[in-house]
Amino acid sequence: MQNESTSAEAAAKTGTIKSAEIVTIGTEMLLGDLVDTNTAWISSHLAPLGVAIYRHTTVGDNQQRIVAAILEAAARADLVITTGGLGPTSDDLTNECLALAAGREMVERPEAREHVDEMFRRFGRTPSPSNYKQAFFPEGAELIPNPLGTAMGALLELDDALVATFPGVPSEMKAMFEETLAPLVKERTDGAIVSRILHFTGIGESALAEKVQDLLDASDPTVAPLASQGKVKLRITARAATPEEAEEKIEPVAEEILSRAGEYYFGVDSETIESALAKLLKKEGATLALAESCTGGLLAKRLTDMSGSSAFFTEGLVTYSNESKENLLGVPHDLLVEHGAVSEPVARAMAEGARKLAGSDFALSVTGIAGPDGGTDEKPVGLVYVGLASGGETAVEKLDLSAWRRSREAIRERTANRAFDLLRRRLADGVNASADR
Amino acid sequence: MQNESTSAEAAAKTGTIKSAEIVTIGTEMLLGDLVDTNTAWISSHLAPLGVAIYRHTTVGDNQQRIVAAILEAAARADLVITTGGLGPTSDDLTNECLALAAGREMVERPEAREHVDEMFRRFGRTPSPSNYKQAFFPEGAELIPNPLGTAMGALLELDDALVATFPGVPSEMKAMFEETLAPLVKERTDGAIVSRILHFTGIGESALAEKVQDLLDASDPTVAPLASQGKVKLRITARAATPEEAEEKIEPVAEEILSRAGEYYFGVDSETIESALAKLLKKEGATLALAESCTGGLLAKRLTDMSGSSAFFTEGLVTYSNESKENLLGVPHDLLVEHGAVSEPVARAMAEGARKLAGSDFALSVTGIAGPDGGTDEKPVGLVYVGLASGGETAVEKLDLSAWRRSREAIRERTANRAFDLLRRRLADGVNASADR
Repeated sequence: MQNESTSAEAAAKTGTIKSAEIVTIGTEMLLGDLVDTNTAWISSHLAPLGVAIYRHTTVGDNQQRIVAAILEAAARADLVITTGGLGPTSDDLTNECLALAAGREMVERPEAREHVDEMFRRFGRTPSPSNYKQAFFPEGAELIPNPLGTAMGALLELDDALVATFPGVPSEMKAMFEETLAPLVKERTDGAIVSRILHFTGIGESALAEKVQDLLDASDPTVAPLASQGKVKLRITARAATPEEAEEKIEPVAEEILSRAGEYYFGVDSETIESALAKLLKKEGATLALAESCTGGLLAKRLTDMSGSSAFFTEGLVTYSNESKENLLGVPHDLLVEHGAVSEPVARAMAEGARKLAGSDFALSVTGIAGPDGGTDEKPVGLVYVGLASGGETAVEKLDLSAWRRSREAIRERTANRAFDLLRRRLADGVNASADR
Repeated sequence: MQNESTSAEAAAKTGTIKSAEIVTIGTEMLLGDLVDTNTAWISSHLAPLGVAIYRHTTVGDNQQRIVAAILEAAARADLVITTGGLGPTSDDLTNECLALAAGREMVERPEAREHVDEMFRRFGRTPSPSNYKQAFFPEGAELIPNPLGTAMGALLELDDALVATFPGVPSEMKAMFEETLAPLVKERTDGAIVSRILHFTGIGESALAEKVQDLLDASDPTVAPLASQGKVKLRITARAATPEEAEEKIEPVAEEILSRAGEYYFGVDSETIESALAKLLKKEGATLALAESCTGGLLAKRLTDMSGSSAFFTEGLVTYSNESKENLLGVPHDLLVEHGAVSEPVARAMAEGARKLAGSDFALSVTGIAGPDGGTDEKPVGLVYVGLASGGETAVEKLDLSAWRRSREAIRERTANRAFDLLRRRLADGVNASADR
């Protein structure tokens, strides 16, 4: 065992890794029961290591198709990463299929058996016989430690490619990738692929693309547009010997883009509208309260998705009923009767009520019809009012999202984007809290 | 043109469709900028039509690789669905690649050009020259109308397979699939694949699997387990001549599973813990208020993701600061000082305060440390208290999610599941609001 493991380790340390493919294994993905988020995560973590990903494949829990997918990927790429199919149940077939693809036997590995025992001890539970299935691996495979779960992964050379098997549980896969695979890949790459993403809002995809068409046609760096829910991003990608050299190629292109479309720009890479807003609020030392009706807590949820949001976010009120708008926020009963809950005056009163109640510098309010029910000719699904109270004049923006027959989810997400952007622009324009007070 | 279109239409109406593959096109997916949700949606909508999906493939915006992926899929499956790459920019290559794969020319289709004009008129904008790229299709293709956007799709026979191209924008793809492709596929299938998903909570994946191991080993119907964030589901899948016959095969298996693990069962198919809870609340005519700290609006967001939640959800309070817990919910200052915000007494006071303020039958409260910062030895990241006020004795449940080094998102999602389940069990056990009052 010791010798096999060592020879596999030696093999795994030769050959440059330039390309990778990801094979996702699980019938639940093919049946649409589960959205595969692992692949996007792995992709975004391989690119900075200089590894280009040309293909993802998903197959079900079927021996023949898993073996075929692994062999095909190994014939095309230097590195094949599989996720899923390492569990203790009988439809978990990945390591067995890797053994078949490589013409190896499955052998029990004592260290993996010990690991199963140890993980069960740690959580005060007793393994069942099926759990020891996770101690079997293709002969000669190097094991990938799993700090969070019972399923260890396998590393095995196959047709000049390195194949790595990971569990489908995202937290386990990520820890194993970062602790074992990433350092190994780093040693075997030469070069880096670096992407920078510039985020824009308030401009459509094709209008933005036309402003930078010459850059979209260029090949080094490449620039590609992508739109979603009222936002557009441009991804600039460069390949070079080092990450620093790639950044040097990206910088002038990014500057050129911002010189042409800077007025719509709000952030770079993982920036979101709410994280850009959070930075501005922190910089001002200003606080924000929320009063939500049709978004029902989505704005609060998105703010508190960010660790550290307690620095500026004081409280959020989900006033879903009219009584709640009256009693909590002090929206006058007559206003609700006269104009209805989805109206400009009610959005205004909600924002002002929330600001007063929370004693915050700003308050955003949302009232609208997210659908699919509740729309009328006069007030269709997609009609939304967003209010911004700041102590000075309260601004109310009317959004009409009715024309595109959007889903409840899309209307809520787009409304949240617009609401956050309303305050972000206010702060970015330098009309800050103190000037308003 | 007329003849070609008619002959393609005729061709598209022959041959039984038994299997499908999905090809996702877009470098943004390979780089991990975007998670592909289209594939899961399409998969879940093809299976009930009797079409088995054996493989998904994702390739980037690269001519050679798109052509290869389409040809490979067409060689294996009866139906190939592509998503993405139908936009107006120069990296949108799908229809061009379909033409290459089929050895056809690209030709301009007047009806598609008119459609571009019409969509721009509808939204009061003017098309730019690049938009008319969307009027070009492989010669002989049938067009798929797009009621929501400018990008029409193509239907073309290739190597005995039918290839359908769809845009990547989910709302457009879904509308086009439902209005054009689904009816066409329905005419060309014989048989149905039906899945039923049973949802469980309060039991681990392997413990549940062991209770039903003999069923997991069976092949008709198949039963497969899947776990996520404190929930486990079992998917039962049967193939038969008609959906009704498939249901008849599923029914006894579902009954057998429930006879062994019914105490952990909470719902079927698209049921979530919150939708199961919503049904019980509506049945009781009971109302619910929320007081959230570390979940920051997530519970409210999940309740209001459901259309019609206003029937039972009155208001939610996101009391992120201590001041807000005191001022809004009336949590005593001394309690916060003595026990800290993350404590059993504060969870209790929050739930009671929210119930009183909203005048609701029930209130759930959450206070905890979602991380990644803010943890201490005494109160680690993952320590959460969930309170349930009902007018009778207030229940508080302590969750310790610290052992698994979970992400902020996972801790928040799992907490929401547990909080909803606390009230769901209470209601399901028949201890209803009126008995408590």
